[in-house]
Amino acid sequence: MEFTPYTRKAQYYETDAMAIVHHSNYIRWFEEARIDYMDQMGYGYRQLEADGMGSLLLDVQCSYHKPVRFGDAVRIDVHITECRGVRMRVRYEVYNQQTGALCCTGETCNCFLNSEGKPVALKRHCPALYQLFVASME
Amino acid sequence: MEFTPYTRKAQYYETDAMAIVHHSNYIRWFEEARIDYMDQMGYGYRQLEADGMGSLLLDVQCSYHKPVRFGDAVRIDVHITECRGVRMRVRYEVYNQQTGALCCTGETCNCFLNSEGKPVALKRHCPALYQLFVASME
Amino acid sequence: MEFTPYTRKAQYYETDAMAIVHHSNYIRWFEEARIDYMDQMGYGYRQLEADGMGSLLLDVQCSYHKPVRFGDAVRIDVHITECRGVRMRVRYEVYNQQTGALCCTGETCNCFLNSEGKPVALKRHCPALYQLFVASME
Amino acid sequence: MEFTPYTRKAQYYETDAMAIVHHSNYIRWFEEARIDYMDQMGYGYRQLEADGMGSLLLDVQCSYHKPVRFGDAVRIDVHITECRGVRMRVRYEVYNQQTGALCCTGETCNCFLNSEGKPVALKRHCPALYQLFVASME
Repeated sequence: MEFTPYTRKAQYYETDAMAIVHHSNYIRWFEEARIDYMDQMGYGYRQLEADGMGSLLLDVQCSYHKPVRFGDAVRIDVHITECRGVRMRVRYEVYNQQTGALCCTGETCNCFLNSEGKPVALKRHCPALYQLFVASME
Repeated sequence: MEFTPYTRKAQYYETDAMAIVHHSNYIRWFEEARIDYMDQMGYGYRQLEADGMGSLLLDVQCSYHKPVRFGDAVRIDVHITECRGVRMRVRYEVYNQQTGALCCTGETCNCFLNSEGKPVALKRHCPALYQLFVASME
Repeated sequence: MEFTPYTRKAQYYETDAMAIVHHSNYIRWFEEARIDYMDQMGYGYRQLEADGMGSLLLDVQCSYHKPVRFGDAVRIDVHITECRGVRMRVRYEVYNQQTGALCCTGETCNCFLNSEGKPVALKRHCPALYQLFVASME
Repeated sequence: MEFTPYTRKAQYYETDAMAIVHHSNYIRWFEEARIDYMDQMGYGYRQLEADGMGSLLLDVQCSYHKPVRFGDAVRIDVHITECRGVRMRVRYEVYNQQTGALCCTGETCNCFLNSEGKPVALKRHCPALYQLFVASME
């Protein structure tokens, strides 16, 4: 699979009084990029919900290397690093597109839920999506 | 009815690169203050939902008079100005508690929804809440 | 001048418990679209700041017609409706790109500030930008 | 030192389409609680800025145990776990006040900056604040 990197601009309302993007917003950018990645895989989050499933975040980690400022264009690289049992682990790298600098790295761990809200193993519960994740790891 | 004014502090993550609270956040503060007001009336938003109803915003207006900065304590006064047919109109005044300055004024108009998501006249559909709104206008 | 309409997708973190985009986010979308419009005009907000100027929101109004849901693609049309004295008035229309439905309309009024933070008449203080706004109104 | 625990209610605009508080908001709550803690210590963030210093987040980690819903009251416990060299490490525990359940735990690591924006060792650069942190760890 070939993925188009996710890009976006830092918005004014995402800055804080230090004139840099507030650290909480990178967590939101991770979500944007993860959702875009699944859309590109061909099994988007809306499909997931249409199939009676959900997704819940279990863990997030984020390291801030260089500030991003209003108007900066960023590229967010997404890597599925693990998809085992009920869990999926994803790595993110946020790059400033002008300078090429790596601004932020992070990781999320989420699980998938069935229609009763119980965590399910993707391999058994939704093999189509599981195969896509596995293929994208290769 | 006696209401305790709604107060809160401006948070760091609510500021923007001009080192003032971003204008979009006042709309959120209006919601906080409106929900607190209904809680104090004795018929909170959770009760509304438990009774199979909902609320939908139709309109918002906001005028910015003086900036609020990180750490400023504000008081938000709430006035129900109209509760007729399917609509409720509410006015807000945001004051800086240290200086007493009026920083922001605004208005929202919302309607109430039944469990099918259709707008309903509160007077007929939920007279208990309607009476509380009317009483609070006096 | 020819403008490319501003488009974006509704993000998951922008939804609320009613599974629709929270009303406060449209105010942020207006800002995104206004900034994009100025970028396209050839005098972006960063240029404004580099020239020692700023911009302050005085007023915002927003009417909600139809909800936008997670994953919906929207187009935001921007119209400069007034640029006189120290004020600029802008109208926004948010359309659902799939259905074509008009979901939200709104207006902002802002003023421009010099390096001391005082409101200035754009016509005199920054005729280049003023001419661009006037041209875009035609 | 005796600290009053930081409490607040989950706001409607903080929920997402799963009708739970969106995970990104806990990062903001950590900031609220950390700032409140420094206020209670007697050396608040505004004092820090008045003394020509700043603070920069280097790292954040957050684990989600149980969802928080609209209207839930939460208590956020703050523990300074390390204050060495240029870094300060803080742990957070978010409890549902009604049920007592531990909903979320997390950690931030930040550094302090001098007026040129360079990281400084608090012990040397601002011994008064350093002593307060050390005392609060005991």
